[in-house]
Amino acid sequence: MTKKSRFLQTPVEPFAVEAGLTAEQILSRMERISFQGRNLAVAHRVWLKMLESDVTIFLGMAGALSAGGLRMVVAHLIAKRYVDCLVSTGANLYPDLNETCGQHHFLGSPHAVDAALAEDHIDRVYDTYADEEEFIDNDNWIATFAASLDSRPYTSREFLYRLGGHLWEATGRDGILTAAYRAAVPIFCPAIADSSIGMGLSQARQKRAGAGQIDIIGDIVESANLIIRRPRTASVVLGGGTPKNFINQASVQAEFYSPEVGGHKYALQIVTDVPHFGGASGSSLEEAQSWGKLATDAARASVQADATIALPILASALEMSARTILARRQMPLFSMEERTMTIDGHTVPSDRFEDLNEPAV
Amino acid sequence: MTKKSRFLQTPVEPFAVEAGLTAEQILSRMERISFQGRNLAVAHRVWLKMLESDVTIFLGMAGALSAGGLRMVVAHLIAKRYVDCLVSTGANLYPDLNETCGQHHFLGSPHAVDAALAEDHIDRVYDTYADEEEFIDNDNWIATFAASLDSRPYTSREFLYRLGGHLWEATGRDGILTAAYRAAVPIFCPAIADSSIGMGLSQARQKRAGAGQIDIIGDIVESANLIIRRPRTASVVLGGGTPKNFINQASVQAEFYSPEVGGHKYALQIVTDVPHFGGASGSSLEEAQSWGKLATDAARASVQADATIALPILASALEMSARTILARRQMPLFSMEERTMTIDGHTVPSDRFEDLNEPAV
Amino acid sequence: MTKKSRFLQTPVEPFAVEAGLTAEQILSRMERISFQGRNLAVAHRVWLKMLESDVTIFLGMAGALSAGGLRMVVAHLIAKRYVDCLVSTGANLYPDLNETCGQHHFLGSPHAVDAALAEDHIDRVYDTYADEEEFIDNDNWIATFAASLDSRPYTSREFLYRLGGHLWEATGRDGILTAAYRAAVPIFCPAIADSSIGMGLSQARQKRAGAGQIDIIGDIVESANLIIRRPRTASVVLGGGTPKNFINQASVQAEFYSPEVGGHKYALQIVTDVPHFGGASGSSLEEAQSWGKLATDAARASVQADATIALPILASALEMSARTILARRQMPLFSMEERTMTIDGHTVPSDRFEDLNEPAV
Amino acid sequence: MTKKSRFLQTPVEPFAVEAGLTAEQILSRMERISFQGRNLAVAHRVWLKMLESDVTIFLGMAGALSAGGLRMVVAHLIAKRYVDCLVSTGANLYPDLNETCGQHHFLGSPHAVDAALAEDHIDRVYDTYADEEEFIDNDNWIATFAASLDSRPYTSREFLYRLGGHLWEATGRDGILTAAYRAAVPIFCPAIADSSIGMGLSQARQKRAGAGQIDIIGDIVESANLIIRRPRTASVVLGGGTPKNFINQASVQAEFYSPEVGGHKYALQIVTDVPHFGGASGSSLEEAQSWGKLATDAARASVQADATIALPILASALEMSARTILARRQMPLFSMEERTMTIDGHTVPSDRFEDLNEPAV
Repeated sequence: MTKKSRFLQTPVEPFAVEAGLTAEQILSRMERISFQGRNLAVAHRVWLKMLESDVTIFLGMAGALSAGGLRMVVAHLIAKRYVDCLVSTGANLYPDLNETCGQHHFLGSPHAVDAALAEDHIDRVYDTYADEEEFIDNDNWIATFAASLDSRPYTSREFLYRLGGHLWEATGRDGILTAAYRAAVPIFCPAIADSSIGMGLSQARQKRAGAGQIDIIGDIVESANLIIRRPRTASVVLGGGTPKNFINQASVQAEFYSPEVGGHKYALQIVTDVPHFGGASGSSLEEAQSWGKLATDAARASVQADATIALPILASALEMSARTILARRQMPLFSMEERTMTIDGHTVPSDRFEDLNEPAV
Repeated sequence: MTKKSRFLQTPVEPFAVEAGLTAEQILSRMERISFQGRNLAVAHRVWLKMLESDVTIFLGMAGALSAGGLRMVVAHLIAKRYVDCLVSTGANLYPDLNETCGQHHFLGSPHAVDAALAEDHIDRVYDTYADEEEFIDNDNWIATFAASLDSRPYTSREFLYRLGGHLWEATGRDGILTAAYRAAVPIFCPAIADSSIGMGLSQARQKRAGAGQIDIIGDIVESANLIIRRPRTASVVLGGGTPKNFINQASVQAEFYSPEVGGHKYALQIVTDVPHFGGASGSSLEEAQSWGKLATDAARASVQADATIALPILASALEMSARTILARRQMPLFSMEERTMTIDGHTVPSDRFEDLNEPAV
Repeated sequence: MTKKSRFLQTPVEPFAVEAGLTAEQILSRMERISFQGRNLAVAHRVWLKMLESDVTIFLGMAGALSAGGLRMVVAHLIAKRYVDCLVSTGANLYPDLNETCGQHHFLGSPHAVDAALAEDHIDRVYDTYADEEEFIDNDNWIATFAASLDSRPYTSREFLYRLGGHLWEATGRDGILTAAYRAAVPIFCPAIADSSIGMGLSQARQKRAGAGQIDIIGDIVESANLIIRRPRTASVVLGGGTPKNFINQASVQAEFYSPEVGGHKYALQIVTDVPHFGGASGSSLEEAQSWGKLATDAARASVQADATIALPILASALEMSARTILARRQMPLFSMEERTMTIDGHTVPSDRFEDLNEPAV
Repeated sequence: MTKKSRFLQTPVEPFAVEAGLTAEQILSRMERISFQGRNLAVAHRVWLKMLESDVTIFLGMAGALSAGGLRMVVAHLIAKRYVDCLVSTGANLYPDLNETCGQHHFLGSPHAVDAALAEDHIDRVYDTYADEEEFIDNDNWIATFAASLDSRPYTSREFLYRLGGHLWEATGRDGILTAAYRAAVPIFCPAIADSSIGMGLSQARQKRAGAGQIDIIGDIVESANLIIRRPRTASVVLGGGTPKNFINQASVQAEFYSPEVGGHKYALQIVTDVPHFGGASGSSLEEAQSWGKLATDAARASVQADATIALPILASALEMSARTILARRQMPLFSMEERTMTIDGHTVPSDRFEDLNEPAV
């Protein structure tokens, strides 16, 4: 034996530059380097495995990725069913709605004088600007739509599906909300109260008493029932936040009612937070295993990088590498026309957890 | 003039070590050093200014600070009215409830083998362990309590007030929830669906159909009405997350209905995230000014530090430095016995925004 | 005019995924998104401008990039003259030497049990392993080579050039040291004492009294004289550390002796540190302008990312986009055969700063 | 047995706020909380253990701590022998020299307009300003001093000792350099070429041919010989950089020549970098064990915090808690009057590594 230690198996192979390398080729060469470059390459490999396995793939999305130019990447991932269910912050859905309505965000500078921006009613998101006034009509548009709904609580999932449909009818334009509507991919927004979509909902109450009711506890029930019905799952997380935990919580909650659920089978996260301060956003995938959020033998990859770098590369590579896998992929089929959604024909109630011992509906 | 430039005003004064220095003395000496040490000292000064001014002080709390040993610091800040309203993640309220019930978290290691922990049903939060089984009774306790409430939506604020009261009756022990109940300090939890408290609420539906309804859109209305009623506010944020944005959003939402509201007058944040990736958690206080979340002349301090270091020092220093200020402080008085809360005798509805032109109730 | 504010000029254009996108195409689409994705695209654009302008391009390299699989990217940047002068830590040159000699680094895990690795004499660099024993011969090889040199101080630049030549003769293999030797690109290593190359040099003293003398103060003089002779410069920095400051210091030092020097004309950095703690590694390019390290009108880009992700993409894109620019590039020509190096035929002494008023040699 | 798992031993004990708490009392209460607060408390405990054991304590110092107001803390740690040997960047020694000469740094803003600062010749270090012109005399003062030395290489250690002595004679003021001179504590500066002290040295060559020679390879030999002579060591690191590695390298190099050396027995680091990118500054203490830099059973603590917060607290606490330990401490005694330094009466040559089999001098 030439190797003196079991630890020395696969040599690092220095990255070789070449003209015309595609995203897929770059990631392929990154598999044998180190640090976050390698992690990004492993993330690509793990996502391919997810697509090949018969799992429901959750995508979690926090940060300001929509305003920051990634909304059409996410819409693309939804439309082509690289993912099956989106869990998002409102701060990613509201800018999506605005751009689908034809407004814009603008390139700006992190060194801007904010008092000058405030005077012009420009809102800054690091190096990106939004025009407050351009959006006021949309707040009202959300409020009006919310006021037009039935006088009953809607899960965020149901509300966002109907909002996406309304938006598609009004604009016929692509975006996250409209893509999800058209592909019948559910969107959960557990912290919808903490966003401009929530603000629009709250303003519905000025239009009609009792309007704007969101049953976010029903979202917990629905998301867990999705997993009870289809226990093999995977998690793709961009940026931590409430979506990261909500996706994990759904699995933990489902396991209370179904022994078949044993944590996500695959997990991939692109994060900028670190574990050292104890927050969930930066927590490691290994830590998630102690909780049973993730199976202890789960294939996983954690990439410490800004999603605005990592996701375009990853999605571009997948578009090449996943082509044939995607064509034969066995994905869950949702119907959301009725108040109670279904997955593969089975109901997914929001008013009580399914009991596996009951016969499936 | 000896100084050649207007930029050179106050010299750095090296920190001088001495035996027996108190937290207050240490912060006082840090005012003339640099970097985050100076920022922590400025934060102390800004908090004192908040207490001296006639402002409603919001405290935002994300991360795993309760499990991590800061829950009694927060309870203390509430009980002694260093703050007037708490906005928290569920992940800080649930461990508080557990410890108030007599369970514990445990010192652990970030290098633990998570598969071994999983086998023992130990959940890891970086370097801290929790016993899953110890908490199962509490989940059920929350579910039972939720099922005992009226069949109507509760704002998270109302629910948490009643939960705090129930907990105080059951245990008579101090903690965040019980301190807030006893001091009549409102707690908002906009992302309650993303936490074990939400899971407990969802389980209430197995006990009683229609139980566990939380009106988080009502929380938006209530929080904005608080500011419409009392427009001078301040913000203290620990760790970003949904609380940070919710506190800012309340001010922005209130400004729609009242020209007297012009952003928080003071702001202080202790964060570990950075602005470079565009997320709200790490966003600068200057960026908040472009949005009008913060007045452009607001006194402010942003400390890049783990709250488990910064907060104990800050709170210990304030306990000395704020003594007389606190004694004469003019703080808002809340009543939460009824479904609709009041502030200083004025109602704070959750079903519609107050219009300033109407006569105050 | 439709835009209400001068701040709103260029809309964000969401990244559009497509199969087969090359690195250049990806970066081109990233120019209109936000955060670090945009910064990476701007970095590409800035590097192209450097190549088009008549500037001497310094490349600074810290971190563990060589062991981590980027040494052939750097060798490529040197061989094709994307850069003109390398400033490196020893920790990047030593692994380069080892791999050029035929040894390897290995893919490992950040979760390894380090005591087990220690037992097997495996050194860990985050997720990468090195075999201590494989390298012992190379330490001795460096020591023997150093002991064979003249009994006088060598600048790190001269020593590394001769080491590169010796290595090329011995192996005929590509790498950073050998590429720099063959392309006559100088390498400075100001902190050579803090590395295994320094350890090899120190061991030369056991072989021959007085061996292993490095004149790092001479490196300061040489690097400044390079800029005095050719005052238009640019800086590309990977990871901060001593190289970042050394490149800036050379410009500041040169300005003492030549009014033509006015800071780098272009600057680009790929860093993972942040500015908030005051260290030079994470310092902003704007801060560098206050020092005169960087011209106040310099085109610049700062990317917050791991170089193992950012550099392969950037270098792959440049290989396409810079093709014609590179072919006609006016780059400085060095000769290092003699003890005193020359640039474009002018001497670059290490024993005294050049005075511009003297006639050029 | 009440505890169901061996993992559950010591409960978290929430931090209790109290008026008048001293630094020592605060750290004592932090021992039972989590995250970086606990780590800071453990660091205090580890430092006390170092002082109680018969070890040589190395202090590494990077970043901009001197300019940032910590130079008198470090001077104090040296004068009272909390540490025995300083390894520093030049960027910490040069500002120390300037302030000892009576110049100042100034409180500034990270949001300054750097072009305006550049116009006034103000150098910015994050939120701290320095007046370029105030320092020009000191550069010349260093150059003049260096030109007055013998025409031979000096280790950075010898040079800095003589510089400290010259500074003490000239000013009679306290500071790092003067405290180290007076306490006969050696200072190594392995990257002296990357600093304004190096620039001063380089300018000495304009005054006298052949002046300003620093034998940094001799520093490697000296530092290893220190450990060969006194093999029990400990490491306290502030901020990573070259000092962190140099201190570890000294132990590794010493072990080549002496089987008694087995890595540092204690280690403590206060860092802001993270391990994920592979750089040495952020590397974990566990990783150091794989290299043998740290004994596998070493007591250790790693604190993720800005030193401007952590060090004042730590040093203030030690001033109380270490009082009696310090009084009876067995520390190494250095003499640096001659060219070759001694430790406890044994020579520490810079021209060859000591062989343990030879009789000690």
